[in-house]
Amino acid sequence: MRISELATTTGVSTPTIKWYLRIGLLPRGEATARNQADYGPAHVHRLRLIRALLEIGGLSVADAQSVLAVIDDPTVSLEQVMRVAHGALAHEAGSASPLGAAAVDAMLERRDWHVAHDAPARAELAAVVSAMVALEGTEPAAIPTDVVPEVARALAAELDPYAAAMDGIARDEVASLPADAPRDVIVERMVVGTVLVDRLLGAVRRLAQEHWFLADRGGPPPADEAP
Amino acid sequence: MRISELATTTGVSTPTIKWYLRIGLLPRGEATARNQADYGPAHVHRLRLIRALLEIGGLSVADAQSVLAVIDDPTVSLEQVMRVAHGALAHEAGSASPLGAAAVDAMLERRDWHVAHDAPARAELAAVVSAMVALEGTEPAAIPTDVVPEVARALAAELDPYAAAMDGIARDEVASLPADAPRDVIVERMVVGTVLVDRLLGAVRRLAQEHWFLADRGGPPPADEAP
Repeated sequence: MRISELATTTGVSTPTIKWYLRIGLLPRGEATARNQADYGPAHVHRLRLIRALLEIGGLSVADAQSVLAVIDDPTVSLEQVMRVAHGALAHEAGSASPLGAAAVDAMLERRDWHVAHDAPARAELAAVVSAMVALEGTEPAAIPTDVVPEVARALAAELDPYAAAMDGIARDEVASLPADAPRDVIVERMVVGTVLVDRLLGAVRRLAQEHWFLADRGGPPPADEAP
Repeated sequence: MRISELATTTGVSTPTIKWYLRIGLLPRGEATARNQADYGPAHVHRLRLIRALLEIGGLSVADAQSVLAVIDDPTVSLEQVMRVAHGALAHEAGSASPLGAAAVDAMLERRDWHVAHDAPARAELAAVVSAMVALEGTEPAAIPTDVVPEVARALAAELDPYAAAMDGIARDEVASLPADAPRDVIVERMVVGTVLVDRLLGAVRRLAQEHWFLADRGGPPPADEAP
C-alpha cells in the first residue's frame, strides 16, 4: 500500500509517518518509484506498536527508539530487552536516600526476590519510598545510620501487600511468555507486557479505588450510574 | 527561615522556589522586609509535595497545579479530590474503541464495581485494551457489533487477575484513610496514595518481573548478585 493508505489504515497522519521514517522508528517501505514506496502489514503493525509506546505507554521518543532498537536486534538477549523496557518506564525519579535503598533491599529480602543491583526499578522504588518518608515529616537523611535497618524493615512490611500482589502477577506473566515462539514474538510480548500493562494496572487500580471509595461513602450518586 | 535556607533544607534551588512562588504552587512567605520573606515548616512540606508530584509522580506542572488547588480548597469534596488526582494520572491515552469501552464495562460488571461513567480511568483503560487488541492483529473497529459483547467478556476474563489483585489493595487503601483526621491530612493522603503509589506499584511489579524472569532462566548471573 502507499503511504496515504497506511495513514488511513492506522489513523496516523502522513506527516507523522514521514517523521517516524526519518528518525528510524519505522523501517522504510520498498521503493517502487523515485518518490514512492510500498508498505505492508508489518508497517501497519509497527505503527500500532509505536503509537502504543508513545500514546499509551507515555514513553519519550528517545525511550521508544531504545525499546524498538532492542526489539529489532536479534543479538540482544531477552534479559536485556526486559531491562531496556523497565528503564524506559523508570522515571528520573528524584534522589533516593540510603533509607530508601535499604527499604528496597529489605523488601526484596522479605520476598526472597533476587534482582540485579543495577535494575532500574530499584532506584525508582527507593526514590518513591524516600519521598513518602519525607512527606510523613522525617527527612530520610536525618535518620541516624544505626536506626536505618530497623526503619527499612518497617517500611518493607508496609510495602508487603503491594509486593505480595505483584509477586503472583509477575510470576504468571513470566510463566505465560510463549517460550517456543520466535524471538520477535517473545520480545514484543515482553515489551507490551511491561509498558502497556503498567498503564493498564494503574487504570484498574484507580477504578477499584473509585469503587471502594464510593462504596465506603454509600455508593455513587444515582445520576452517575445511569447509562 | 529565609529563601536560601528553604533551598538548603529541601534541596530545591532558589530560582526554582521563586518560580513556584510566581506560578502559585508555593504560597508566599510572610514578608519581613521589602525583598525578604520568612518561610516555615509548612513551606518545607509543601515543597516536598510539589517535588514528589512532579519528579516521582511525573505530573505536568499544570496537573500539579490542579491537584494542589483541590487540596487547598476546603470546599472541594473528597470525591472530587480523588477525581482530580485520577485525572492527573490518566494519560492522553489515544483513542479508545467501542470494544475497549465494552471490555471495561464487562470487567466492572464481573467485579461488581460501581464506577461513575465519566471516571478518568475508564477511558484510559479502554484505550489500553484497544491498543492491545490492535497489536494482537485485530483492529477493534473491524469487529462486528454483534460479536463485541462476547469479545469484551473474554477480555474482561483476561483482565481479571489484575482486577482481583487491585480489588484487595484498593479496598485496604480506602479503609486505611484516617476518617477522623482533619481534611488537609486526608486529602494529602489521598493524593499521595494515588499519585505516588501508582509509581510505587509499577516499580514493585518490575522488581517482581525481574525476579521471576531470572528465576525462570536459572537465576541472575552471580556478578549481579555481588554486593
